[in-house]
Amino acid sequence: MSENKPLTKLSTLGEFGLIRHLTQDIKLKNSSSMKGVGDDAAVLDYKDKKVLVSTDMLIEGVHFDLAYAPLKHLGYKAVATNVSDICAMNGTAKQITVSLAISNRFSLEAVEELYEGIYLACDQYGVDLVGGDTTSSKTGMCISITVLGEADDEEITYRNTAKENNLICVSGDLGAAYMGLQLLEREKVVFQENQSSQPDFSGYEYILERQLKPEARQDIVRLLKEKGIKPTAMMDVSDGLSSEVLHICHDSGLGCKIYEDKLPIDYQTYKMAEELNMNATVCALSGGEDYELLFTAPLEDFEKLSAMEGISIIGHTCAKSEGYNLITKDGNSFELKAQGWVNFNPDNQQ
Amino acid sequence: MSENKPLTKLSTLGEFGLIRHLTQDIKLKNSSSMKGVGDDAAVLDYKDKKVLVSTDMLIEGVHFDLAYAPLKHLGYKAVATNVSDICAMNGTAKQITVSLAISNRFSLEAVEELYEGIYLACDQYGVDLVGGDTTSSKTGMCISITVLGEADDEEITYRNTAKENNLICVSGDLGAAYMGLQLLEREKVVFQENQSSQPDFSGYEYILERQLKPEARQDIVRLLKEKGIKPTAMMDVSDGLSSEVLHICHDSGLGCKIYEDKLPIDYQTYKMAEELNMNATVCALSGGEDYELLFTAPLEDFEKLSAMEGISIIGHTCAKSEGYNLITKDGNSFELKAQGWVNFNPDNQQ
Repeated sequence: MSENKPLTKLSTLGEFGLIRHLTQDIKLKNSSSMKGVGDDAAVLDYKDKKVLVSTDMLIEGVHFDLAYAPLKHLGYKAVATNVSDICAMNGTAKQITVSLAISNRFSLEAVEELYEGIYLACDQYGVDLVGGDTTSSKTGMCISITVLGEADDEEITYRNTAKENNLICVSGDLGAAYMGLQLLEREKVVFQENQSSQPDFSGYEYILERQLKPEARQDIVRLLKEKGIKPTAMMDVSDGLSSEVLHICHDSGLGCKIYEDKLPIDYQTYKMAEELNMNATVCALSGGEDYELLFTAPLEDFEKLSAMEGISIIGHTCAKSEGYNLITKDGNSFELKAQGWVNFNPDNQQ
Repeated sequence: MSENKPLTKLSTLGEFGLIRHLTQDIKLKNSSSMKGVGDDAAVLDYKDKKVLVSTDMLIEGVHFDLAYAPLKHLGYKAVATNVSDICAMNGTAKQITVSLAISNRFSLEAVEELYEGIYLACDQYGVDLVGGDTTSSKTGMCISITVLGEADDEEITYRNTAKENNLICVSGDLGAAYMGLQLLEREKVVFQENQSSQPDFSGYEYILERQLKPEARQDIVRLLKEKGIKPTAMMDVSDGLSSEVLHICHDSGLGCKIYEDKLPIDYQTYKMAEELNMNATVCALSGGEDYELLFTAPLEDFEKLSAMEGISIIGHTCAKSEGYNLITKDGNSFELKAQGWVNFNPDNQQ
């Protein structure tokens, strides 16, 4: 946004004008996208593939804070987190629809920034924007994205199909997005107390990026296919590793052993946790918003998986009767507990 | 809701508890719904059909007023208006996803009422609820629904495929939903001035129902198929007849002649318009929210269409150079203008 030009009020465009303005440059990338924006519904053609569909809603003040989430990043993240759900089914995202409610406190230029991020993510993941709805709200911003993807029947990975003595694996590293959020919140408080202060993020660029611009691990889905590994169950880590491990175990009727010393944690995550007097393992287990892929795989894939960069084998499944176990670095065993999503907790509400 | 029992706070359930509670009784109806709620994405199988997808967002205070829209009706309407978009493509709705943001001022019982309406509409239209997202909001309620449907390639009706000298037809009657809204708003003002007053809706049941519980015209889609009529273009009337006629004409590069005396208007709509000193024709042209089907059809279908109950032939398309014409009852011709959607008008904002 140029700081010199006066900003454009949304009311000068009207709904149809705004939609046209935001969607006029769309070029459809996928052959399954027959007809995109501009009719009562989009028309898609999946031929002999199965269709995957997932949806997410993001609310200002609950899921994002515009004080530190730039609109372009927000748009990117909204798409990436949805694409992540299709990855978690071992599929390929193909289309999204975007519904947006915004109050008049936002200018056209602000909405354009948001869409810049949305389109950047669409390019990154090869996804077509094929529909949506744009409306006004009385107060905050609300974004709802639905993603559609495709997969062959036999390659789809569910949550309830893990087997006993499967390896439990996770891509990338954990807890960084949560530590990025802690850093942003700390600097926001500092800024509120002294408005002339400048936030100091040096040395923490990675955890900030993990919070503000997470990526869907489409590369991991492709890599596993290349290596001939078919996960027996898979989820993306949005609520926190513990919560997702328990989901898979519960739905598959299994127990698990997770080894603390195997958890992949970045140096910046450790450093920030130390600075804030927090336990890095707890952040990795319960932080959430990592959007890494958690999956189970047969024991015979051990060597292949061990040799893959960006994949950590963090434990294995076992009989349900053995329970949900976290084996700590000193060899003690604790019950693994979920502390994920707390948005309905009254303490979290205003 | 029983008035004696204490209401249940949403925070006692948590997100997963709430989703489980609201979705545990779902039985999938369509063979294309392979896997519904409970994984990262739903899995759908359309075989050799084309997939239709459409999405709508409803915001409290903009699209609905809980002072007079009961939650059950709201849930029903949210689904019906989305199914209507699939009807407008000449397809059959099969699945929906529902995203809901609600603040803690709503109880579990209130959310249950909303979902009662959602499930009632799902049954009415043979649609499966296969996914969604439930989250908290800081203030009002926000509902986002995405609907998926199917159609054979050759039966899909777009907006831009009307031909010159096609008949312009509309199902049902027009303007009633708008008059129902005017009535509700009048009674709300009366109630605010005197809280002991009881609203008087007698004789206006039909226009109230049209506003609070509109139906998607799946029956018309089926009827046209039975009679062997393939519309050349079709839309649903959500923003107002004028706006939709102009959409089809503009996108198809045509002009039109619409005859005032052919517009289907219910007796209650006339009566209410008279009572409020409004012009019933203007309400029919610009009222919106009728969710009737507007379509164009070849001249040779004239006899079939004339004989069909619930279908009115209201005019015909012509060359673009002849313009967009409304022929009044006294034979004068005026330019047809759209006055539909005004949510971005600053006068409409708070």
